[in-house]
Amino acid sequence: MAGELDFIARLRAIASHPAARGLDDDCAVLPLGGETLILTHDAMAQGVHYLPSQDMADVAWKLVATNLSDLAAKGAEPLGVLLGYALGADDARFLDGLAQALDHYNTPLLGGDTIRVEGPRSFGLTAIGRATHTPVPSRAGARPGDGVWITGPIGAAMMGLEALQANNPDPAASLAYRRPQALLAQGQALAPMVSAMMDVSDGLLLDAWRMGAASGVTIAIDSAAVPLAAPEARRDEALRWGDDYQLLFTAPTTPPLRAIRIGTVIARGEAPLMLDGVAMGDPARLGWQHAS
Amino acid sequence: MAGELDFIARLRAIASHPAARGLDDDCAVLPLGGETLILTHDAMAQGVHYLPSQDMADVAWKLVATNLSDLAAKGAEPLGVLLGYALGADDARFLDGLAQALDHYNTPLLGGDTIRVEGPRSFGLTAIGRATHTPVPSRAGARPGDGVWITGPIGAAMMGLEALQANNPDPAASLAYRRPQALLAQGQALAPMVSAMMDVSDGLLLDAWRMGAASGVTIAIDSAAVPLAAPEARRDEALRWGDDYQLLFTAPTTPPLRAIRIGTVIARGEAPLMLDGVAMGDPARLGWQHAS
Repeated sequence: MAGELDFIARLRAIASHPAARGLDDDCAVLPLGGETLILTHDAMAQGVHYLPSQDMADVAWKLVATNLSDLAAKGAEPLGVLLGYALGADDARFLDGLAQALDHYNTPLLGGDTIRVEGPRSFGLTAIGRATHTPVPSRAGARPGDGVWITGPIGAAMMGLEALQANNPDPAASLAYRRPQALLAQGQALAPMVSAMMDVSDGLLLDAWRMGAASGVTIAIDSAAVPLAAPEARRDEALRWGDDYQLLFTAPTTPPLRAIRIGTVIARGEAPLMLDGVAMGDPARLGWQHAS
Repeated sequence: MAGELDFIARLRAIASHPAARGLDDDCAVLPLGGETLILTHDAMAQGVHYLPSQDMADVAWKLVATNLSDLAAKGAEPLGVLLGYALGADDARFLDGLAQALDHYNTPLLGGDTIRVEGPRSFGLTAIGRATHTPVPSRAGARPGDGVWITGPIGAAMMGLEALQANNPDPAASLAYRRPQALLAQGQALAPMVSAMMDVSDGLLLDAWRMGAASGVTIAIDSAAVPLAAPEARRDEALRWGDDYQLLFTAPTTPPLRAIRIGTVIARGEAPLMLDGVAMGDPARLGWQHAS
């Protein structure tokens, strides 16, 4: 883990161009010819990001949706994707899910590379979008006095994975985990009015902590206000679980779409996150920590 | 293999947007806001695209150079890259080579994803560029009467791999294989005057065959005219070996930089490629066939 943190630190040092946003944001933001490019690349590895038993159509869908969710957090409109694909079992199912997701989001496949690998497979997707509003929202703009909002409930992916692991025969029970939604329309509607925005991929508390840290403020969350798609007894877990891809944002005014206020931005106190009045200093126990 | 060809065929059907160029070109070409984006994604897998014993700094260099070579074939100027990285042994060496290559090509790292995987690793890189000349060269523009040219000798990578496999202590002996060059300046100089252009990544004969097929012409090559960076006795092998990343192009006039004329474009005959007057119909024996 020390080596991994060191790796990321050195990668950040290499990524010194302002468009890279210090690798601290969901996307790179690159002005070009009167437009602003929004760029992201996310990967999924067998046994790490998906169960080896999962339907490859769902894996393909999730690969597309998670990348487009990063674009959504910038208020971007997708221009296309490039796929890094490793051949193996169920290639046809992967293509089914890929075609469904790209069709659903009206996003073209522009290119990529197909390779053979030895051992477990991994897949990469690069999503390219254009900003619909500048300045492009970042994680770093939350200001004391802003409200803290979320576009919908969390916990659905947690329940969905458990249904999948339990071989629940009802496909709807695991849908939120298998086929997350990228909230592109919501992101575009919110971009002009938010002070900070990100998608909740690694857990609400961890992602809110990161937003507070990037903004130099404290995000104060009222846990009871957080809408839940899981039993009340699972609230603490749901707050720390990822994969829901709701948009978390701060704004000085009431948003123009359905969203739930879950807290307030305050001046930086003891920690970047305060939960029910308690400072949360250590991000290690707030959510899903991965390499980058 | 049948499954693989079927996979690529279905992928092409999904990639129906004109910017994808039917997945038949080195890059996607996407007009945006008065500029033209040039996009490519290439991957490298351990044991397939590099030797497990290789210095990871060389692997990183090659990953950058091969992607930028695709941009070079479009006459593009790099805007940045996104990296899909799998953690493992020698991460620090990978970063050394990455930093060297990006510095050499004055190209920023804009983002990416770092994941853990089980088993052999693979790496993906997305390169984003802007066209310096439109229309952007493709493989499909060669016209009867055009000359066929190459920017430099082939065979250097073949000799370099052999030096590496033989543990030749002189690093210069394997340099061409370990640290290929992306001919960005040459590509930009050539873009306004070529009728077709591509980089020679999979072998001169195979790539020339593809250019002939895409253009609906026959590329007639005089094998003795092809400049060699290998012993004369290896000429036939060098013509079929890849990884040299010279630019192959056709043009109606003499190019404005040092290049070697190796043939002539003629009306489509029996096959997309003719070598020393003999039609070469079967691409399977012309070079390095891989998945895409």
